[in-house]
Amino acid sequence: MNFINFVDYAGTFAFAISGIRLASAKKFDWFGAYVVGLVTAIGGGTTRDLLLNVTPFWMQQPSYIIITGIALFVVIIIGKKMSIFNNAFFVFDTIGLGLFVVVGIEKSIEAGFPFWVSIIMGMITGSVGGVIRDMLINEVPLIFRKDIYALACVFGGIVFYLCHKLHFQPEITQLLAAFSVILMRIIAVKYHLSLPALKGGDEMKK
Amino acid sequence: MNFINFVDYAGTFAFAISGIRLASAKKFDWFGAYVVGLVTAIGGGTTRDLLLNVTPFWMQQPSYIIITGIALFVVIIIGKKMSIFNNAFFVFDTIGLGLFVVVGIEKSIEAGFPFWVSIIMGMITGSVGGVIRDMLINEVPLIFRKDIYALACVFGGIVFYLCHKLHFQPEITQLLAAFSVILMRIIAVKYHLSLPALKGGDEMKK
Amino acid sequence: MNFINFVDYAGTFAFAISGIRLASAKKFDWFGAYVVGLVTAIGGGTTRDLLLNVTPFWMQQPSYIIITGIALFVVIIIGKKMSIFNNAFFVFDTIGLGLFVVVGIEKSIEAGFPFWVSIIMGMITGSVGGVIRDMLINEVPLIFRKDIYALACVFGGIVFYLCHKLHFQPEITQLLAAFSVILMRIIAVKYHLSLPALKGGDEMKK
Repeated sequence: MNFINFVDYAGTFAFAISGIRLASAKKFDWFGAYVVGLVTAIGGGTTRDLLLNVTPFWMQQPSYIIITGIALFVVIIIGKKMSIFNNAFFVFDTIGLGLFVVVGIEKSIEAGFPFWVSIIMGMITGSVGGVIRDMLINEVPLIFRKDIYALACVFGGIVFYLCHKLHFQPEITQLLAAFSVILMRIIAVKYHLSLPALKGGDEMKK
Repeated sequence: MNFINFVDYAGTFAFAISGIRLASAKKFDWFGAYVVGLVTAIGGGTTRDLLLNVTPFWMQQPSYIIITGIALFVVIIIGKKMSIFNNAFFVFDTIGLGLFVVVGIEKSIEAGFPFWVSIIMGMITGSVGGVIRDMLINEVPLIFRKDIYALACVFGGIVFYLCHKLHFQPEITQLLAAFSVILMRIIAVKYHLSLPALKGGDEMKK
Repeated sequence: MNFINFVDYAGTFAFAISGIRLASAKKFDWFGAYVVGLVTAIGGGTTRDLLLNVTPFWMQQPSYIIITGIALFVVIIIGKKMSIFNNAFFVFDTIGLGLFVVVGIEKSIEAGFPFWVSIIMGMITGSVGGVIRDMLINEVPLIFRKDIYALACVFGGIVFYLCHKLHFQPEITQLLAAFSVILMRIIAVKYHLSLPALKGGDEMKK
């Protein structure tokens, strides 16, 4: 297992944990929590792969299914003391996000799409899992109201594009793009930055 | 840009506006509102293209992404005074709906599907965007309870089928089908027509 | 029409009825109820077919569209007296579930996927329709909190796998797998068995 694999799996684990914990707050049973965890972890990449018309990545090897199972096991064992590890989960989650964005961009370029599509696919890979998670637990998706989660994905995509235009080496490009996502997300969370809420629709019904 | 393009873009704009305004009523941030607007505008066509197994239309040229950006900009600038333009939005929205239905039908016939599938695809193209929009903002989809939105799409599809059977010219067929959707929708809204609510499930739990 | 067809259509009918009745409890109009019924009946198989990258099954012949129409008609006619037939619906629903799981597994194996993917696809075929139904009516999906619906699907998949490994005849394998799903579901409902709810996420926000 190389470094990329490790980051991929750690990110999957952190995404799954976030889904499982939110499901547990809604009194889901073990199986329901597992499904929500899995969807959080693989929902973004699956949406991307359906749009790109390629076989969904998690159907090619069982790692993601297994890692989500481990995540469920960990939540069951550790239970209420989970919050001790919140910082570790945040680190995994954020590094995983950076990687997922880069993977999404590269897979789209390989599939022959232009850069603007690839940047959108990077964002979809990073953020759609959390949106489906929130729909499953019947909440308004968090990323639409707080954080600059999805915007960090787009920012990373633009950095990727610029590095590519400047003929940086592929490895450097990937690293800088992932790092941009991570940095922007950390800054946003640390300084409670968020986009302004939109005004103007209060008085309408449809 | 020909007439069809203009109608397509005006419809996209109106669909995006409806999504953005509903998102703003839910205090979404700018980015969240943009995403809801985009999904409203392209969700129906994307669902259709996934079912038909063709590349989603918006991944082939960036117009839809840009038009949704303009819609967001307009809502930010105009803000609370948006409701002055409600009639204009309704006109765009309804004409756009007529076109979307026709495009959905034609694309399905081209892909080799029979007419009954094409009529369903016309309806999906016209109405699924609004359904996903309502799921994202955590409301029961509006079209299931009010209006005869989706039924207008089906009606247009049947008119398309009849014109085709009667060997009308393609342009006439398209125009009559789109016009049927528009007319039925306008009549339904003007006279507050809606389908009866269904009774019979009050006493069950699953 | 052979036996498999009959079971398929009876299962479709029962799934559609469950969607239509829940929609009627939410005051959906006729058309909205029809759509929810249809999505309940075909949502699982459609998700499976999109993931397997094959044409969705219901686009190949109109039976499912028609059966859902009959289901709507039945609910409109019988109305509040529907609950007399609850046992019959449960029988259809459960036998249908057994068949849907087996169909989902076989279609995935035919498409060349390994057994662990096929078992997941069997579960998706059996349970995703109900999840989309609950999202459309804006409820937390029932299967995540009650019943061991989805787990019965997985259990049937494992039985299928074991029978296959033991070189049972295909017909015997199908029958035993479907029967396992049905048995586990009946036992779970009769004895009010359910998985434990997960604890540990109460104190987190995101």
